[in-house]
Amino acid sequence: MIVRVITVYVKEEYIEEFKTATIKNRNGSIREPGILRFDVLQDTRNPGVFLLIEVYASEEATEAHKETPHYREWKEKVEPMMAKPREGKAFIPIAPTDSSEWE
Amino acid sequence: MIVRVITVYVKEEYIEEFKTATIKNRNGSIREPGILRFDVLQDTRNPGVFLLIEVYASEEATEAHKETPHYREWKEKVEPMMAKPREGKAFIPIAPTDSSEWE
Repeated sequence: MIVRVITVYVKEEYIEEFKTATIKNRNGSIREPGILRFDVLQDTRNPGVFLLIEVYASEEATEAHKETPHYREWKEKVEPMMAKPREGKAFIPIAPTDSSEWE
Repeated sequence: MIVRVITVYVKEEYIEEFKTATIKNRNGSIREPGILRFDVLQDTRNPGVFLLIEVYASEEATEAHKETPHYREWKEKVEPMMAKPREGKAFIPIAPTDSSEWE
């Protein structure tokens, strides 16, 4: 399992549009066989800052995600909404470690 | 619901001890009635960097957590293991929004 945590910085005027586009991407993503969870969070102090927490079954699943129509549509749609480039980091789960507990 | 994301910076020589102490805290935390999830992640590139993703039912539950024996024991135990102070941020869930999907 691999957990990708992406921080996205959104221009204030695009916050609602970004949410709509990201929920759509999330709803497509959770149907991918290699994606266990895909959570979208908004910073309470900085409402233009979002975290995407993407839980993948494998490294291959992270690559497969980038080829999906919902990801490509999202990426193109949100590009002009970014206040600065997004930051992504990869993590391994320490707890829980059983993939059934991530679904 | 409130999601607290804590970044913890651990001195290299304490990484394994930190994991053990944090898994213990996590296993106590998920039994709290106000905690829906409590995930522990380790950065693949910087193994001394950990994320704790703590999903609470309410603001009150975040306060109740700080009074528990497992949290207090963890806090004291990991204090000397820190390379620098931990950073905590609070988020609201955009997706999923149904609390049953966070358990």
